[in-house]
Amino acid sequence: MKKLNTTPIKDGFRMPGEFEKHSHTYILWPERTDNWRLGAKPAQEAFINVIKAINKYEPVIVGVNDTQYENVLGLVPENVKVIEMSNNDSWIRDCGATFVVNDEGIMRGVDWNFNAWGGLVDGLYFPWDKDDKIASKMCELEGVKRYRLDDFVLEGGSIHSDGEGTIMVTEECLLSEGRNPSLSKEEIEKKLCDYLGASKVLWIPEGIYNDETNGHVDNMCNFVRPGVVVLAWTDDESDPQYERSKKALEYLENEVDAKGRKLEIHKLLIPNPVLITKEESLGVDAVDGTLPRNENDRMAASYVNYYTVNGAIILPIFNDPHDELAIKKLSELYPDRQIETVYAREILLGGGNIHCITQQVPYKHK
Amino acid sequence: MKKLNTTPIKDGFRMPGEFEKHSHTYILWPERTDNWRLGAKPAQEAFINVIKAINKYEPVIVGVNDTQYENVLGLVPENVKVIEMSNNDSWIRDCGATFVVNDEGIMRGVDWNFNAWGGLVDGLYFPWDKDDKIASKMCELEGVKRYRLDDFVLEGGSIHSDGEGTIMVTEECLLSEGRNPSLSKEEIEKKLCDYLGASKVLWIPEGIYNDETNGHVDNMCNFVRPGVVVLAWTDDESDPQYERSKKALEYLENEVDAKGRKLEIHKLLIPNPVLITKEESLGVDAVDGTLPRNENDRMAASYVNYYTVNGAIILPIFNDPHDELAIKKLSELYPDRQIETVYAREILLGGGNIHCITQQVPYKHK
Repeated sequence: MKKLNTTPIKDGFRMPGEFEKHSHTYILWPERTDNWRLGAKPAQEAFINVIKAINKYEPVIVGVNDTQYENVLGLVPENVKVIEMSNNDSWIRDCGATFVVNDEGIMRGVDWNFNAWGGLVDGLYFPWDKDDKIASKMCELEGVKRYRLDDFVLEGGSIHSDGEGTIMVTEECLLSEGRNPSLSKEEIEKKLCDYLGASKVLWIPEGIYNDETNGHVDNMCNFVRPGVVVLAWTDDESDPQYERSKKALEYLENEVDAKGRKLEIHKLLIPNPVLITKEESLGVDAVDGTLPRNENDRMAASYVNYYTVNGAIILPIFNDPHDELAIKKLSELYPDRQIETVYAREILLGGGNIHCITQQVPYKHK
Repeated sequence: MKKLNTTPIKDGFRMPGEFEKHSHTYILWPERTDNWRLGAKPAQEAFINVIKAINKYEPVIVGVNDTQYENVLGLVPENVKVIEMSNNDSWIRDCGATFVVNDEGIMRGVDWNFNAWGGLVDGLYFPWDKDDKIASKMCELEGVKRYRLDDFVLEGGSIHSDGEGTIMVTEECLLSEGRNPSLSKEEIEKKLCDYLGASKVLWIPEGIYNDETNGHVDNMCNFVRPGVVVLAWTDDESDPQYERSKKALEYLENEVDAKGRKLEIHKLLIPNPVLITKEESLGVDAVDGTLPRNENDRMAASYVNYYTVNGAIILPIFNDPHDELAIKKLSELYPDRQIETVYAREILLGGGNIHCITQQVPYKHK
């Protein structure tokens, strides 16, 4: 399909809010044994649970390396499509296409440069060549034209859109040394607006404590709908997360969105600290150049990393006392959606959560 | 997508004639240097010409190994889809799905066991594991249910359907030692009828001389429409092809199709013998277990290996005096279709021709 040299904003395209209607969802299959313990089998079970939960509400396409093709065919529900998509790991939120739409229902893909969350500065594995082709492959599968940015590094998990001109990011991630160090904050803001069809960027200072993505916004804050956000929170002032959430709250309370609205901010308590056990650490292959999974490392657990699908929220839970609070809060915030929970510790152990392993395709493109 | 344990004939499905309307065409990209000379570059150029010719009439999807993904994206027309499909070689007619349809416009795929034209008896390369998954991957891409035959070996190039209950094959191929040696002719005939929704099988004795596929019918004879066939022919009685074509003619003259019709048979003169040159032979990597390409080997050149698309015939030509005769004959036989010629020596040097490298998807399935 055609590669475009213009920009979405010039062509009249915008990134929809995730809460807008989807056509279907993409997922990539986890496999690498230097990130996922025990040959990735426990993670694969968790991914299957996510696939089944989403599949109750919208179609799912699972991208797989050829080596796992037949295995996955036998594991997924019968109406799920399994498509070969060679990958380095399974974070399609980050390496996948960001789809944009126009008022005529035409869809296109934005294909950012992907460098595994920091390239040779602080990237999480090497190489990342296959991941960087995933966005292009999604555009081919969807049969849509593609904007490719060879010179701008971004992951889908580092942005949220309200669909009405507002993009939300963190400074910690977007201004990190491993992504676009030669660009100023203003230049980065312009790229975001040009390629997401937006006019306002909200710059939350930091993300979740110890988040290996340099603080992706999708673990920290999300749009429930235009003008309404949920923010990861803790009341424990001794938790290093406290200052991060407090700074975000103060920033958001003093900002307006692209439409000039003050934001309605809802706090979502994070679970108690999730630490890697010795057994979990020992199940991961030790490989030079891949981030190790050490005993007692604190994982960046947050309920904000839920995924919004047609008619439901796919919510990670951790067998934590705060699970029920998150379910209750999101039930109130989303009165028209079911709350589907998936026990997600095995996904978290790989460095992300349900939002990080999913990518929506807007409905209804031509 | 779902794997079925019934049969197309029980479920009311049939294989359409290739001359019935298509939705689109699949092609696989040639790459292996032990079959295609000079790193497959001359063959790739010929494949691009085939892709461009088909793309004038119907959409084309090109399946590629990941290694060639970006290269192919830059070579094909902008509206052609490039999809990752790991393969051992590029003969999608033979390893791809055979699509069947029912009267309600629903489509399904038949996924035959593929063993590289003879397995460990006289197969053309080893291994063939990736090729054997292509049919399944096409069904996933199309989102259709699949009949898988683990215990029956067949290639799509060894069958033709008239869409009205008649299948055409060669005994040379279907009864070969390397495919289904434990099955009788009657058992094979039943498999064909069950899985292609047919009631009559025409058994032409042999295919084209020196055809490494054990005489695939798609190089020897084709349905122009129900009741009308073209047959590869030579008037040179000293050519080993003469006896083969003569036996086929005698057989077909004395047969009727599934509807009880006598067949109208048109002869299509083959080109003069095409021999591999020394230079061509030297350009191919010598590898144990892959059929060598030796100087002066005669290739199985035949115009019958054309491909029928919506509104056109994609016809291989050889810069041979018989090219014009073939164009003229097919223009008469297909008054409503354009004759698009592609110089196809480089495809022939790999062991097949335009029909062998294409696979149609029927129009308009649900």
